[in-house]
Amino acid sequence: MPGHQYAGAQCEDDRPPPRVVALGGGHGLYASLSALRRVTTDLTGVVTVADDGGSSGRLRRELSVLPPGDLRMALAALCGDDEWGRTWSEVIQHRFRSQGELHGHAVGNLLIVALWELLSDSVAGLDWVGQLLGAHGRVLPMSSIPLDIVAEVAGIDPNRPDEVTTVRGQVACASTRGRVQSISLVPESPPASPQAVKAVREADWVVFGPGSWFTSVLPHLLVPELAEALVHTKARRVVTLNLSPQKGETDGFAAHTYLDVLAAHAPGLRVDVVLADPTVVGGPVEHDLLRRTAAGLGARLVLSNVAAGEGIPRHDHDLLAAAFDHVFQH
Amino acid sequence: MPGHQYAGAQCEDDRPPPRVVALGGGHGLYASLSALRRVTTDLTGVVTVADDGGSSGRLRRELSVLPPGDLRMALAALCGDDEWGRTWSEVIQHRFRSQGELHGHAVGNLLIVALWELLSDSVAGLDWVGQLLGAHGRVLPMSSIPLDIVAEVAGIDPNRPDEVTTVRGQVACASTRGRVQSISLVPESPPASPQAVKAVREADWVVFGPGSWFTSVLPHLLVPELAEALVHTKARRVVTLNLSPQKGETDGFAAHTYLDVLAAHAPGLRVDVVLADPTVVGGPVEHDLLRRTAAGLGARLVLSNVAAGEGIPRHDHDLLAAAFDHVFQH
Repeated sequence: MPGHQYAGAQCEDDRPPPRVVALGGGHGLYASLSALRRVTTDLTGVVTVADDGGSSGRLRRELSVLPPGDLRMALAALCGDDEWGRTWSEVIQHRFRSQGELHGHAVGNLLIVALWELLSDSVAGLDWVGQLLGAHGRVLPMSSIPLDIVAEVAGIDPNRPDEVTTVRGQVACASTRGRVQSISLVPESPPASPQAVKAVREADWVVFGPGSWFTSVLPHLLVPELAEALVHTKARRVVTLNLSPQKGETDGFAAHTYLDVLAAHAPGLRVDVVLADPTVVGGPVEHDLLRRTAAGLGARLVLSNVAAGEGIPRHDHDLLAAAFDHVFQH
Repeated sequence: MPGHQYAGAQCEDDRPPPRVVALGGGHGLYASLSALRRVTTDLTGVVTVADDGGSSGRLRRELSVLPPGDLRMALAALCGDDEWGRTWSEVIQHRFRSQGELHGHAVGNLLIVALWELLSDSVAGLDWVGQLLGAHGRVLPMSSIPLDIVAEVAGIDPNRPDEVTTVRGQVACASTRGRVQSISLVPESPPASPQAVKAVREADWVVFGPGSWFTSVLPHLLVPELAEALVHTKARRVVTLNLSPQKGETDGFAAHTYLDVLAAHAPGLRVDVVLADPTVVGGPVEHDLLRRTAAGLGARLVLSNVAAGEGIPRHDHDLLAAAFDHVFQH
C-alpha cells in the first residue's frame, strides 16, 4: 500500500472526522469530492454507472463491464496534492490522441477495467486502484451492473412543444433538445452496491450534487435499496445546486426547479441543507421561492460563494470545501 | 512512493550489495531479473527496443513511441513477492481479450506509454511506473529511439541453402525459416540511453542472457556507446546460455555457438563467466568445445542446474538466483 505522506484533511479538535458520502457522477462529483477531501478523512463517493458515451461507452460495449469513466474521475478527485497524487491523477485522466484504435481512451479507464477482469469484483478492483493512487477516500459504483437511463422528454420537435418522447441512453438524454420531464433506469430495479448502501446508512452527512441533474444525481434515487437507505439514513442530507443550467438536460431551470425534480423522483426524501451560490438564486422573488421550496423538503437554505471566478461556471474546490465545512460544523 | 514492506534480497554480511546490470529483452530478461532481484538490491535491467510485433508493435506504430512490451515485462519481473507486488505484476501483464480494438493490448504497455506521453521522457516514465509497482530495481531502454533489427539469413529457400537474404523486423527475424548469420540495427548507430551506459560503467557485474540471442541479447552490442561501455567497464561479465535452441532464430545451435556469435558481434568483449545448465552441454566433446570457446573469451565455464523441472524449457528463478549468487561470491 502506498506510504506517501498523507496530504488530506486535518482535524483541529478531538472529534472524529465526519463520515461523508457524496453521490453523483462526472464533473459534478469530481468537484464535490475534491472539496470534501479537504474537509474530512472519512469520505466515500458513490457513482452512477449509466454512461454510454466516449471511452466508457466503448469499454462497456467491448468488454461487458461497468462504464468506468465517472468512477475514474472520482478517484482522480481523491488523489492528494503531493507530487505522487498529482502525477497519478494526471496519468489516470490522460487520454490517448491518435488516428488509431486507442484514440480517446482514458488510461485510468483501462486500468480499472483490467482490475475488474483480474479480480472479477468491481468494488475490490476500485479499492486496489484507490490504494495505488493513495486516494483519500473510497469510490463505489451505485449499482453492480451497467445501467441505461431513459428520459421522458417534452418538445423535442419545436413545432409540438407538448409531445413527450422517450429517449434512451445517458448521452442522448444529456444532450436532448427537448425538456427532460423525468427519468427511469433500465433495468428498472437494479441491485445496489451493498457497500454503497452500508456507507449511506452509516454516514453523518450525505451530499447530492452538483452535477448533471437527471443523468448523474437523480439516478441514485432510482436504485431501490440505495433510495431506501438515502431516505432512512440518520445522516443529514445536503443538496448542492448547480451553478448554471446545463444545455439540454436542465435548460431554463430556476434554482428551485432542481429541488422540485429531486422531490418528484424521491418521495419521502427529507433534506437538511440546500447549498447554493448567491449568483444562481436570482432576484428576491426567486430567492423566496427557493427558500420556501427548500423548507418544503425540511431544509434550510445556505448561500455561499462557491463559484470559481473566471471562465465557464464551475465550483472552486477551496470555496466549496469551506462551505461544506461550515455546514458540517453548524 | 509505495511504502509496502520490502521483500527483496537481504545481505547477510556488511558488504554492499553487488551492483548488477542485466541486458536482454522479453522472457529471457524476465528470468534473469526475477532471479537477480533475489540476490542483490542494486539491480538495473537494460532492455532492447526493437520489438515490432503484438501490442508493442501496434503502440509503436499508432503513437510513435518506444515498444513498451519488453520494458513492461522487465518491470513485472522486479515486482515483489508480497500481495502488492504480485497483484500489480499481474495487472501490468494482463491482456485484454475481446472482439474489439483493445484485444491483445497489455495493460502495463498502455500505462507506460501514458507516462511517456505525459512526461515526454522515457526514463522518467519508467521510473514512475517502477515506483508505482514498488519495483526492486530499475528498468531502462537500451536506446532512446525505437529501432529495427535487420538479419542476414541463409537458406530461407530450402533449395538454395547458401543464399543469404536480408530480413527486417524483430518478428520476421525471430521466426525465420532460415539460419540467422548476423544482425544489425536500423538506424545503424542509435543513441544509447545515457542512464544505461552509466549503469554499465558503474556495475560490479554485467549479465548477458538468457534470451532470444539475435533479437534480444546481441542488439545491446550494436549500440555504439553501450557496446563501448560493455567492453570497457570494470564490471565482470556473465553470459547465461539458453536452455534450448529457439525455433527459427537459433535452430541447431550447439552451446558454444552462442559464444561464437556473441564474439562475432562484439570484437574486444571479454567474458568472465559462462553459466550453463548441464543439460545444454551435450557429450564430453561438446563440453570440451564449450569450455575452450569460453576460455577463448577469457571466461571460466560454470555448470549449474538452473532449469525448471517440467514442461517447456525455462529457467527456475530460485535455482538461477542461487547460481548467480555463487558466481558473484566466488
